[in-house]
Amino acid sequence: MDIAAYMAEVGEQARAAATQVARSTTAVRNQALLATAEALDAARDALVTANIRDLENGRRNGLDGAMLDRLELTPERIDTMIEGLRQVASLPDPIGEITDMTFRPSGIQVGKMRVPLGVIGIIYESRPNVTVEAASLCLKSGNATILRGGSEAIESNQAIARCLAQGLAEAGLPESAVQVVKTTDRAAVGELITMPKYVDVIVPRGGKGLIERISRDARVPVIKHLDGVCHVYIDSHADPEKALAVAVNAKTQRYGTCNTMETLLLDGEIADDILPLLAPAFAEKGVELRGCERTRAIIDANEATEADWEAEYLGPILAVRVVDGLDGAIAHINRYSSQHTDSIITENYTRARRFITEVDSSSVMVNASTRFADGFEYGLGAEIGISTDKIHARGPVGLEGLTSQKYVVFGDGHIRT
Amino acid sequence: MDIAAYMAEVGEQARAAATQVARSTTAVRNQALLATAEALDAARDALVTANIRDLENGRRNGLDGAMLDRLELTPERIDTMIEGLRQVASLPDPIGEITDMTFRPSGIQVGKMRVPLGVIGIIYESRPNVTVEAASLCLKSGNATILRGGSEAIESNQAIARCLAQGLAEAGLPESAVQVVKTTDRAAVGELITMPKYVDVIVPRGGKGLIERISRDARVPVIKHLDGVCHVYIDSHADPEKALAVAVNAKTQRYGTCNTMETLLLDGEIADDILPLLAPAFAEKGVELRGCERTRAIIDANEATEADWEAEYLGPILAVRVVDGLDGAIAHINRYSSQHTDSIITENYTRARRFITEVDSSSVMVNASTRFADGFEYGLGAEIGISTDKIHARGPVGLEGLTSQKYVVFGDGHIRT
Repeated sequence: MDIAAYMAEVGEQARAAATQVARSTTAVRNQALLATAEALDAARDALVTANIRDLENGRRNGLDGAMLDRLELTPERIDTMIEGLRQVASLPDPIGEITDMTFRPSGIQVGKMRVPLGVIGIIYESRPNVTVEAASLCLKSGNATILRGGSEAIESNQAIARCLAQGLAEAGLPESAVQVVKTTDRAAVGELITMPKYVDVIVPRGGKGLIERISRDARVPVIKHLDGVCHVYIDSHADPEKALAVAVNAKTQRYGTCNTMETLLLDGEIADDILPLLAPAFAEKGVELRGCERTRAIIDANEATEADWEAEYLGPILAVRVVDGLDGAIAHINRYSSQHTDSIITENYTRARRFITEVDSSSVMVNASTRFADGFEYGLGAEIGISTDKIHARGPVGLEGLTSQKYVVFGDGHIRT
Repeated sequence: MDIAAYMAEVGEQARAAATQVARSTTAVRNQALLATAEALDAARDALVTANIRDLENGRRNGLDGAMLDRLELTPERIDTMIEGLRQVASLPDPIGEITDMTFRPSGIQVGKMRVPLGVIGIIYESRPNVTVEAASLCLKSGNATILRGGSEAIESNQAIARCLAQGLAEAGLPESAVQVVKTTDRAAVGELITMPKYVDVIVPRGGKGLIERISRDARVPVIKHLDGVCHVYIDSHADPEKALAVAVNAKTQRYGTCNTMETLLLDGEIADDILPLLAPAFAEKGVELRGCERTRAIIDANEATEADWEAEYLGPILAVRVVDGLDGAIAHINRYSSQHTDSIITENYTRARRFITEVDSSSVMVNASTRFADGFEYGLGAEIGISTDKIHARGPVGLEGLTSQKYVVFGDGHIRT
């Protein structure tokens, strides 16, 4: 198989389909989503059969338990995919919205219209349900999609692709509006990220290594979702009760998510009072503490090294550092944070104001758990990821992040003088 | 000189300065702009002396007349730079604006705050006044800037850089907030566009070759300003008087701008009526017409080839094509347009609605001259360029295009359950 020729063909078809999807009505795109949901429901046996082949191959190839778990399509996961499609169908259509329309002194009227980006390439790893999630958000926002899932999920993804094709066809949209790459050859990724003629943006979902590699080699824009090294800073003016509740929640509500706190900072003025309350709370949850020298002078903790300030543990480990006031906290965060989500606990108005202004992260919070950094919690209705980029879309990315705007000008024969 | 080491130092200083600029108040940034204006006014002799050295070098190196003209700093151009700084100072500050702040069902309040991008790299060609224009917009929007001007303008740019440094110092901002690269070595550009650690976005200004090369090699996001192959389509339901006025204005008001019409399209149903009126109007202005076969059956015109549909003439030449109705026009535009600006002339509501929806360009217009596609005409107050990208900023880019947004969350000890 000539991978370059195959991917160019996929790209060309996606570009052609994008025009048709962009012109389609809200009702047609919603119909495609709902018809896909029905197709998935009707294809449960085929999906499970395909998935079993992937699981068997995975076991033969020595995939670990966590990987096999992510790969599995249980009946509940199929339910969730179906429910997700119906939810996306019920969201408002972002496309066509015209805003800021004003008359200019010249007499022309100028505003902005929200439009699809065009063709979106999604590169992801083992979870086959991402195929439906990503495709549904891109389709709802009027885009064509090229999906490149993990090679270990190829059978499951192709089975899902057939349901998507059926849903698109029933709504009268071209099947090439959503294409799942048919080859597991890695060269396909290299082609996908270097076809600016056919692909408008790449959304990679997966480990840090994958995303860094794609960002480095891509010749099209990438909406990145890198790591989440999130901080909670307990200020000396914090309410201890709120501090305790938020710190424990931010670390322990879920360990594996990117918005989980990885480093806790405490003002030196309050560390003596708060740390002895926090230590047993974390001990009860089985969280290992790794503290700086000042922390270890107050509570029992393992010794934190420089690597701990940069670590995204994604597990029951927490780095703890005592800093000198707000300046110390901001300096630490702006040095070590991955600019994902950082929160201050304080009752002091001026410190809260400074924190949200001076911390340069995609979400800055006051007296709230970092775990709230999420498209659903923010009211976006859906989420394709959490961008750590500054360009285009930053923080949780919903349908709007998959769109652009164009200027619309209405005149009456106006000429420029 | 070790270019890589020098550029890394420039980058590191810019990154440090960016934090200070981002934290500075509106008043301080405006003060820096006004103090720079005064410094330029006081340094007129030094500016002209430096510029004369550039002009002499340019003549020795065989620069053509147009290039020398762009390079020259006349007293009027210095006036314009000074006036531009004062205008930018008078614009509203985009930074810190908080929008869309709402309560969520969980009880947290979520909104978006507008923030600087960080460090912006500007790469441009001979015109030294771009140094001031670009620096002032980046500074106003809270960013640090690294400017890499054309080597032929190095003396003028360094003289301007000294005024900027003076203005920054007077306002108490670090001089490294605006750095003009001191070497003419081309390797500096290569470094600048591959330092994601220090540079957040590159804005290239110049010829198509420069911009394509930068886009290809950059490892940081690029806000591109590529070519403007703009169209006016005269629909069969056009008002002939408006059609004539707009077509002539879009082509002849200025030839060298990216929003100038390069191809005129006419519906076959109206071409017989309109072309005989248009031909003498263009002849009077000295515009050479290059027509398709159907055009040449109605009026005298040179023969257009495929290359003419793709040409950005930037001069008194116009490609003319007769198409089959709105579908023909949209098909031509979506194939040949550079997606900059395209306009329909029609009195028909449905055709206008289809045109603005289906033409995928950064500005779509009804009954208005393409020459209106401009930051000032759109009310942006200033313009760093016109983006032909779909990502981040599209169309005329003002201060807002040099910013990003972060999410702000206010809670009262809220935890996620």
